[in-house]
Amino acid sequence: MTDKLQLSLADDLHVHLRQDELMKEVVPYIRKGGCGRVLVMPNLKPAICTVAQALEYKSQLQAIDNSIEYLMTLYLNPALTIDEIKKAAEAGIVGVKSYPRGVTTNSEQGIEDYEIYFPVFAEMEKQNLILNIHGEVPSNHSQNICVMNAEEKFLVHLEKIHKNFPKLRIVLEHVTTEAAVQKVKELGKTVAATITAHHLELTVDDWAGQNHNFCKPVAKYPSDRNALQRVVREAHPRFFLGSDSAPHTRNMKETACACAGVFTAPLLMPYLADIFESIGCLDKLKDFATRFGREFYSLPEQTEIITLEKVQEFVPSEYFGVVPYRAGQKLNWKITANV
Amino acid sequence: MTDKLQLSLADDLHVHLRQDELMKEVVPYIRKGGCGRVLVMPNLKPAICTVAQALEYKSQLQAIDNSIEYLMTLYLNPALTIDEIKKAAEAGIVGVKSYPRGVTTNSEQGIEDYEIYFPVFAEMEKQNLILNIHGEVPSNHSQNICVMNAEEKFLVHLEKIHKNFPKLRIVLEHVTTEAAVQKVKELGKTVAATITAHHLELTVDDWAGQNHNFCKPVAKYPSDRNALQRVVREAHPRFFLGSDSAPHTRNMKETACACAGVFTAPLLMPYLADIFESIGCLDKLKDFATRFGREFYSLPEQTEIITLEKVQEFVPSEYFGVVPYRAGQKLNWKITANV
Repeated sequence: MTDKLQLSLADDLHVHLRQDELMKEVVPYIRKGGCGRVLVMPNLKPAICTVAQALEYKSQLQAIDNSIEYLMTLYLNPALTIDEIKKAAEAGIVGVKSYPRGVTTNSEQGIEDYEIYFPVFAEMEKQNLILNIHGEVPSNHSQNICVMNAEEKFLVHLEKIHKNFPKLRIVLEHVTTEAAVQKVKELGKTVAATITAHHLELTVDDWAGQNHNFCKPVAKYPSDRNALQRVVREAHPRFFLGSDSAPHTRNMKETACACAGVFTAPLLMPYLADIFESIGCLDKLKDFATRFGREFYSLPEQTEIITLEKVQEFVPSEYFGVVPYRAGQKLNWKITANV
Repeated sequence: MTDKLQLSLADDLHVHLRQDELMKEVVPYIRKGGCGRVLVMPNLKPAICTVAQALEYKSQLQAIDNSIEYLMTLYLNPALTIDEIKKAAEAGIVGVKSYPRGVTTNSEQGIEDYEIYFPVFAEMEKQNLILNIHGEVPSNHSQNICVMNAEEKFLVHLEKIHKNFPKLRIVLEHVTTEAAVQKVKELGKTVAATITAHHLELTVDDWAGQNHNFCKPVAKYPSDRNALQRVVREAHPRFFLGSDSAPHTRNMKETACACAGVFTAPLLMPYLADIFESIGCLDKLKDFATRFGREFYSLPEQTEIITLEKVQEFVPSEYFGVVPYRAGQKLNWKITANV
């Protein structure tokens, strides 16, 4: 039985680091959670819509912890020009994030129609930028669309973008459904998906009345959760770690109308070791968290090594006012060396 | 345009009146909400398992408001004997409520297998008692059963009980799915269903992160909600009012792990007038709330008349620490006379 793992620092290719005071609290936990490189989401207030904003945000993050590599993204919006895409590529911005309007935290500026972005996508394809997609359509009750099928209903849009831009690398973020897993597999080598730690465990039962497990996309049926577990178990190289770690303070969760998001950053690798062991594929963790993502993003391997050991610890009830995933529960793995 | 409705006091054939202090707060609101007769749920602590307990509970309720007719139920459990069913019939107990184990508030003593109750059901059929069923199977992830399909997966059990006891009157409580509506229609005249006010409006989108709308069974897809609206619009006589009004104090809702239940009792008829008008069937409200239920239960018509008028008022933010349904929102109907 494995009771010790050594692997390089992980790549978390989808994380919310927030801004201002919350940013200062969150950023130091990236490394504590076992990650050395993160793809930073741009849904701030105001949203990160320009290269200048992204670079300013990056410098703020570096001022807090300069040992982390921050991969920056822009927020796809109607004001984003082809020229800005060229500048983004020159400045080392990695991706452009698309949010459908109104489906999650700070997505009020999200998009309603993808075709108007085709010129931008064409330039992104040329500049080798990645399109990061929050793949849900907004609820529309006359079309029977709600949070439970919003991801599946989005897949036609994903397919259409891919067919028009077959060389554009697309990441369907935080997939939650069997349908999405199948579609990403089917679309071939330029289309990948991130999977969060929590979606490997949760189902709709876990967020019914339990707001700390409420996130967007919502966790779905057990069969969907099982499909996510299967795809990591089979070590499919286009499915890799993006935690979607998204801190909201307790008062924003334990309230009448909760914010969407699960906070996993501080214990990300211990959560994953625990989950991968429980689903019988601990040997697949390394590639999921340190290889498949960087290969899709064409990034070098990280050199620093961390050690995870089979040591029980309890998840704290709170970090700086934020209740983490599985608060108060036991984890079987712990990072014991993080050089 | 109708701007005034006169109808007899309504029959709410599914309500939670609680016990002790909360009971004393809740009961006076039955009549304020426009109801004169209620079927009282037995899931107290301890559960109402005997005729003696039911009669004691009834006398407590009468001591608070003697103008309401309380139809009492027993909690189906392994200790319930055929002799107790006979006594229940003699004592005027109306129904026996079945809870699947663990699916809702105080259902830990709920049942796991219906066949062991067949002798009890046979006696109930003989004594003309009604079987009131919370129709959900417990979540079972290896069988892909979760809160979203727990009602649909229950329908085979409903059908089996009905086939074995075709004369036993069964009420499938608080139906939430198109599948349940169809099954109840199909099973014929001894099988009926209650519908709550809130399930005529809510979908899964409304309880995602919003615990005040979280109840069991959970609200489902828009297509399911539409099926409920359709069946009241067509005035099907075996679908009638059971509010499932279930007060939980704010601190039990705005918390990490919320209790299930929506509190509608204080404004039940105004909510319904508002909803029925919005779905274009205000003319069907009277039969839904005052006729179909009593006919299925073989009860006389209530004689006291209430008046609802099209007068806007806002739902209070709270009653005695409990946040009501649609708190703070506008209602278009108000009870202006309640003799």
